[in-house]
Amino acid sequence: MQFYVDGFRGGDPDQKDAAPTRRDYSAHAPLPEKVDVLIAGSGPAGLCLAAQLAQFPEISTMIVERDPRNIEKGKADGINTRTMEMFQAFGFAEAAKRETYWVNQTNFWMPDPANPKHIKRVGRVQDVADDSSEMPHVLINQARLHQLFLDVMKNAPTRLEPDYSWQVVDLTIDTDTDDHPVTVTLEDTGVNWGMRKTVRCNYVVGCDGARSNVRTAIGGELQGDAAHQAWGVMDILANTDFPDVRQKCLIASKTEGNVLILPREGGYLFRMYVELDKLNENERVAQRNLTQDHMIAAANRIMAPYTIDVKEVVWWSIYEIGHRMTNRFDDVPPEEAATRTPRVFTAGDACHTHSPKAGQGMNVSMQDTFNLGWKLIHVLTGRAEPSLLHTYSSERWAEAKRLVDTDHQWARVMSAPPGESELDGAGMPRIQKHFIENLEFTGGLAVKYETSNLTSGAAHQALATGQEIGRRFHSAPVVRVSDAMQMQLGHVAQADARWRLYAFAGAGDVGQNGSAMRALCDWLETDPKSPVVKYTCAGEDIDAVLDVRAVFQPTFDQLDYGAMPSLLKPLKGKLGLQDHEKVFCTDHKGVGDIYDMRGIDRAQGCMILVRPDQYIAHILPLDGTADLAEFFDAILIPASGN
Amino acid sequence: MQFYVDGFRGGDPDQKDAAPTRRDYSAHAPLPEKVDVLIAGSGPAGLCLAAQLAQFPEISTMIVERDPRNIEKGKADGINTRTMEMFQAFGFAEAAKRETYWVNQTNFWMPDPANPKHIKRVGRVQDVADDSSEMPHVLINQARLHQLFLDVMKNAPTRLEPDYSWQVVDLTIDTDTDDHPVTVTLEDTGVNWGMRKTVRCNYVVGCDGARSNVRTAIGGELQGDAAHQAWGVMDILANTDFPDVRQKCLIASKTEGNVLILPREGGYLFRMYVELDKLNENERVAQRNLTQDHMIAAANRIMAPYTIDVKEVVWWSIYEIGHRMTNRFDDVPPEEAATRTPRVFTAGDACHTHSPKAGQGMNVSMQDTFNLGWKLIHVLTGRAEPSLLHTYSSERWAEAKRLVDTDHQWARVMSAPPGESELDGAGMPRIQKHFIENLEFTGGLAVKYETSNLTSGAAHQALATGQEIGRRFHSAPVVRVSDAMQMQLGHVAQADARWRLYAFAGAGDVGQNGSAMRALCDWLETDPKSPVVKYTCAGEDIDAVLDVRAVFQPTFDQLDYGAMPSLLKPLKGKLGLQDHEKVFCTDHKGVGDIYDMRGIDRAQGCMILVRPDQYIAHILPLDGTADLAEFFDAILIPASGN
Ligand SMILES: Cc1cc2nc3c(=O)[nH]c(=O)nc-3n(C[C@H](O)[C@H](O)[C@H](O)COP(=O)(O)OP(=O)(O)OC[C@H]3O[C@@H](n4cnc5c(N)ncnc54)[C@H](O)[C@@H]3O)c2cc1C
Ligand SMILES: Cc1cc2nc3c(=O)[nH]c(=O)nc-3n(C[C@H](O)[C@H](O)[C@H](O)COP(=O)(O)OP(=O)(O)OC[C@H]3O[C@@H](n4cnc5c(N)ncnc54)[C@H](O)[C@@H]3O)c2cc1C
Repeated sequence: MQFYVDGFRGGDPDQKDAAPTRRDYSAHAPLPEKVDVLIAGSGPAGLCLAAQLAQFPEISTMIVERDPRNIEKGKADGINTRTMEMFQAFGFAEAAKRETYWVNQTNFWMPDPANPKHIKRVGRVQDVADDSSEMPHVLINQARLHQLFLDVMKNAPTRLEPDYSWQVVDLTIDTDTDDHPVTVTLEDTGVNWGMRKTVRCNYVVGCDGARSNVRTAIGGELQGDAAHQAWGVMDILANTDFPDVRQKCLIASKTEGNVLILPREGGYLFRMYVELDKLNENERVAQRNLTQDHMIAAANRIMAPYTIDVKEVVWWSIYEIGHRMTNRFDDVPPEEAATRTPRVFTAGDACHTHSPKAGQGMNVSMQDTFNLGWKLIHVLTGRAEPSLLHTYSSERWAEAKRLVDTDHQWARVMSAPPGESELDGAGMPRIQKHFIENLEFTGGLAVKYETSNLTSGAAHQALATGQEIGRRFHSAPVVRVSDAMQMQLGHVAQADARWRLYAFAGAGDVGQNGSAMRALCDWLETDPKSPVVKYTCAGEDIDAVLDVRAVFQPTFDQLDYGAMPSLLKPLKGKLGLQDHEKVFCTDHKGVGDIYDMRGIDRAQGCMILVRPDQYIAHILPLDGTADLAEFFDAILIPASGN
Repeated sequence: MQFYVDGFRGGDPDQKDAAPTRRDYSAHAPLPEKVDVLIAGSGPAGLCLAAQLAQFPEISTMIVERDPRNIEKGKADGINTRTMEMFQAFGFAEAAKRETYWVNQTNFWMPDPANPKHIKRVGRVQDVADDSSEMPHVLINQARLHQLFLDVMKNAPTRLEPDYSWQVVDLTIDTDTDDHPVTVTLEDTGVNWGMRKTVRCNYVVGCDGARSNVRTAIGGELQGDAAHQAWGVMDILANTDFPDVRQKCLIASKTEGNVLILPREGGYLFRMYVELDKLNENERVAQRNLTQDHMIAAANRIMAPYTIDVKEVVWWSIYEIGHRMTNRFDDVPPEEAATRTPRVFTAGDACHTHSPKAGQGMNVSMQDTFNLGWKLIHVLTGRAEPSLLHTYSSERWAEAKRLVDTDHQWARVMSAPPGESELDGAGMPRIQKHFIENLEFTGGLAVKYETSNLTSGAAHQALATGQEIGRRFHSAPVVRVSDAMQMQLGHVAQADARWRLYAFAGAGDVGQNGSAMRALCDWLETDPKSPVVKYTCAGEDIDAVLDVRAVFQPTFDQLDYGAMPSLLKPLKGKLGLQDHEKVFCTDHKGVGDIYDMRGIDRAQGCMILVRPDQYIAHILPLDGTADLAEFFDAILIPASGN
């Protein structure tokens, strides 16, 4: 964590100085008439976006929520490793790690061949494969996750808070103006129930869940198949003689159906998903009159000979599997894409829904708005043209499609009764095999954006074989040279809409005069074509747009920190203080060599350009400056005065 | 972290349910007339004690502070590894790790033999030796550390807060009564300046710093030598071409004196201690008229050829080295020890002061009250006789003595000009050698309590050669069997005044019937002589007094968790929920085997009994139940009804 760059200030370093222009949230202060961005819904998608925008006082953001307050319990609970990597950038991964349940193992239980009425453990799988991510896969109450984002918002310069008890009922877009073209009608759902207000917005993001009004307003419709199966879900405090109750378990009985156990935060609570039997065509879940008692009874039948003695049902719900999505995530029909740019977006459940079993819904919803956030910030701060916003729908739609397909398949595997072939104990059960094959996917690590303006072709992929262009930057251990700190390189990334350039030095390169690293740094710092020179405004820190970090092959004690290129020791902030956190090297204590772990070319080194949302945009040789310049020229607007 | 044992409750799990009986802290609520414990002073010593007592609503605690609010900056900044281990028990080690500077390396600079007017790096030392502690050595603003304790207090059932703007002026002790025998006179230092109040107390703890009024009231006097040297200290935001400014450095110039550099939290701030020249006998620091400008000038002279360009002086002070202590830490003179028990204690700077150079003052102050806290809690909750309180002064006085002696010696080494022999570059400089020899000491890890009621003899020390009786329990990696969680065994300890018994199974012992572990657990659970049976009150959780954790030699997947002894799967809380966090085993992923790392006898196993303050009280064979019973009989009072 870096702080005090503008002078000492006591107190919590997570709390940023409040912006003088921030909105007044006191009890009777009026709602704004106009905002840059209105977010509908304070679920994971909405909050993840709000937490990004809240850092920018120059952007006015409003987040409205129909409910009167944050939820208290229920809904989703799975945070995959990819989402935890994102949380690191928001600053609360450590907090999340501390209070969550960690899914270390997933176990598989099947009918015992010797006594098919009883279940038996048939397999164990390490849930997060070694070095697939530096983060754990965790489970926590969705309400608590919301709170972590709300804290980030509250600590941001804007002190952003949701406007509770307001719902978006409708919106209109005036395509003839660029001045707050979207007019949103809000309706009070609280004390002044039914009272309406309008707010004019530059952009609207519908994070308003599966029954999204924003989606409806832009003519979107969830399409796909609502599979005919119902699962009951309950969060319970219970005792059991089932020995694996503190591990994630997929349990298939011979005739009574399936159960999924997800242990939860705090050491006592756990969630059970219980398969309720097949629904008839057109039969709605709500009509079934299923209750928590049905679920508890079913769980006990499925888990025989073990029993579950429920002490408290904290929350329960009946959940019907539906894999559906809209055909685009913004308001611009394909035929108009060339002539106008999007003003309204949908994200999360508003545009794609999933079965809860693979634990993706909440994760992918946040990843949607992590993709959108920096793009909106770029456009609203004048760094990029609004056409950048087209890429949100194209990138996230393809991802959602892949997700819905995979998820669909997985739900089928989960629900099928265990085949006879799986009962003989020979080999690995089909479900376990499928689970292992899908681990990278369920971890959120398989996401890969196609080649586009934002994602280069793979011409230089060979320079870093373990860092695939289009996929997330995969962190690895390094040591910070200035203070010999062992750390994860990926943890320098913050959710601050900045690009990051990781420059890996080749053999013999310690930043000395004449070295490739020196030449790159000097070019970046001074050449008129350099993105640092071209896109950084006067008065901004030199790393405001592109944050350059260098990695060297020797250990920290073999490097001359004082002799590093000046770009790597920039003077920043109001006081012009030197930033000491730009220079890294391989670990001297043997925890792993980042060059080996990520297939970085030792002879040549390379540059890895990473987008603000942690996805790899480009890989280039250290002298690939022309290509780097060209890449940014297609995205960014030169800073005024340049 | 365990929570929800008494049922689900949303929100921050660190926030405990408020006790209905808690004090009203609203604006015009009166001060209490009577309290169990009055703490004078809200420095590290006072807050560390308050944070422990705050967990017990049945104990009324008041902490008064002369100042109107928490400090904002300055004072001490070093948190050694031992203190970090203690912070883990308070629940804020992770938070502290995240926002502090980590001292990874300490570097030594001396006059360059080739050019003695210039300094040169002559050595580097890894500051925390491998496996000396699982914790880092960190640096942070003392004010922020106070806040971490204040947060613990605020989240505790009592919602304890300091009473600011009140000072203790005097106290009297009525040795004829046991009903609140200490009468404390408080004086308002705020708006009603000079107004006095009295509070009657069962115990008073003077954590009121070097000029302690509590110490004076019980006739204590700081004795020892106030060495005749002054150091200036300043926390600055500055640029420099000195390459090691982000590492701890001891810098000795040829003729200009010495500097100590301590980088600080946030990446920009650092502290410098600058040796100001020798003081004459009887010359007071304050009379010297030294200013920050003298210090900056001196630093620049000492560090030539490097220069320091100061942008902001955040805090500065002139600090005179004094190594002094009182001859006892409570109100009972040795001749009365047999006939009465202590009512008034002093802790921290109130009874011993140190040079800042070894960074011990703040650490040892907190360790004082971590030693005292559980003893007061034991006595005030009726678990132990008041005679237990005699051990506070005896244990901590001996420790302070050792500290003052070592510290004195260290200050001498630091201040001596570098000898010619050190300038030739051959061998290790004397100061570096001394530094390395003292690392265990400065880490706070050398503390060893003498044999007493609370610390057994070493009869069975051979069963765990790496866990020395009288020293702190040294954590090591294990895996929690129920959920395959890789963790530190020592992190199960909380600052909750409970004793912990770590039972290590011998070879072939997996808790099965007939095994030594099974026999021990059954004895502990049912035998009338067992401390669990004898000292746990009806209605309390079975681990309320003695928290038993078992460690087995196989990996988690080779153990039958369901078949573990019932003591290791206790039902707890209002709902009678099963606790799944009592059973551990060696790590399956090769991070280290706790038996090897801590010299645990693999054939026999052993029991390690650990006090509430994390110090090892006893080591016994698994069948040493009679000795265990005898040990506790000398300390605890049988629970009523037993
Ligand atoms: C009852 C329920 C149970 C669920 N159970 C599970 C589960 O067991 N496992 C699982 O993986 N996932 C579950 N989910 C899905 C999971 O919670 C979502 O995938 C995830 O929350 C998606 O995040 P989101 O932000 O896109 O939408 P949501 O979390 O649905 O958030 C939408 C928010 O918008 C608000 N809102 C709705 N309409 C408006 C409007 N017009 N104006 C303003 N605000 C509006 C809503 O009140 C809500 O706060 C459940 C969802 C629901 C609703
Ligand atoms: C100005 C100053 C600079 C220091 N600089 C360093 C340094 O550079 N490095 C270092 O290692 N250590 C330094 N120390 C020492 C370090 O801060 C102490 O060792 C450490 O704080 C000891 O903790 P404590 O709780 O025992 O006492 P303190 O932190 O001194 O706390 C005592 C508290 O009691 C309050 N108090 C005093 N009298 C009364 C009364 N009668 N009634 C009620 N409240 C009272 C005080 O206001 C204070 O808050 C410094 C101390 C001071 C005062």
